[in-house]
Amino acid sequence: MRDDVRTANEAYAPSFGDRGSLALPPARRFTILTCMDARLDPAGYAERSEGDAQVIRIAGGRAGDDAVHSLVISCKLLGTAEWFVVHHTDCGTEERMAFFADEGIRDLLANSLETAALGPDGFHDVGTGPGSTEARSVDRLTIADLAQRVLEDVTRIRSHPLVPTRIPIDGDRYDVTDGRLIEAEDATEPGASS
Amino acid sequence: MRDDVRTANEAYAPSFGDRGSLALPPARRFTILTCMDARLDPAGYAERSEGDAQVIRIAGGRAGDDAVHSLVISCKLLGTAEWFVVHHTDCGTEERMAFFADEGIRDLLANSLETAALGPDGFHDVGTGPGSTEARSVDRLTIADLAQRVLEDVTRIRSHPLVPTRIPIDGDRYDVTDGRLIEAEDATEPGASS
Repeated sequence: MRDDVRTANEAYAPSFGDRGSLALPPARRFTILTCMDARLDPAGYAERSEGDAQVIRIAGGRAGDDAVHSLVISCKLLGTAEWFVVHHTDCGTEERMAFFADEGIRDLLANSLETAALGPDGFHDVGTGPGSTEARSVDRLTIADLAQRVLEDVTRIRSHPLVPTRIPIDGDRYDVTDGRLIEAEDATEPGASS
Repeated sequence: MRDDVRTANEAYAPSFGDRGSLALPPARRFTILTCMDARLDPAGYAERSEGDAQVIRIAGGRAGDDAVHSLVISCKLLGTAEWFVVHHTDCGTEERMAFFADEGIRDLLANSLETAALGPDGFHDVGTGPGSTEARSVDRLTIADLAQRVLEDVTRIRSHPLVPTRIPIDGDRYDVTDGRLIEAEDATEPGASS
């Protein structure tokens, strides 16, 4: 893949043009939290032009501590004034895991990792039974309903002690089949749960 | 900003074309961990075409626990086989903070947040003195040297107990003035620190 990336970059850089003079703060002062899924292009589906927004991407677009800290930094250091949480249909980390209950997932991942540690694919041997940090970290990836997940994450961000109450936090669902955003009405009221 | 996003999406979706049929796993099976900075376009600077890679973005592109868990998920559930850690020049969260030592940053952010809680900008009042979770969370954002930061994060990922030793982890610096990636040679050896 190294060569693929080098090839892509060699094609990209010569046509970089005046993008080198884009200002550091995002042009339209908003931040998007969304999933790492390869099919998503937040600059396309939500920005009017490149450099409009800061983009945080993490498995499922979920609002874990690191994502929330990045949101706070985007606001405190770079002046973003509105945040969008965007989860999407056919989410691998969400919907593949949604076939299992939380307990099942924990056991599955724990067993998978423990088995892998003994197998040929190079995993370290580590204790990852239910209750370990690794097992707990997947609890928040197993909620099946998309709108409910968006609302849950908006609420989690809204109630986080470092998050300014004044900042609007919008929730959206993105449909990977047609590129459309659907606003989650319940998630858009500023300060609703604070 | 809500209207800007809606306008952007209404322009994007009608020309979505056959992107709705992209497969869930990334086409070229690699994952990029990079910064949330508005000026970065990983799909442009590192992918040969849309859908090539999963993209994790977080403040500074730093390898915190949530980012590492996303990398592990990208490998275990979606089959990525190589990872790229890409930090960039003129990084707001890095270089603005690099003017201060760790202790200074902690105090600054803690004081900023405590002051804000008393001021008009809507921050909750919360204990964020040195040693608190919030203060500790910014420790890893204060290393000034870009190549050193990339190497540090590659090493951190490499030595994480959930990360397969077989997976190559490349480190790169991205120059926001010309769109070019510079490979961090020291960071590219698979299994170097495991």
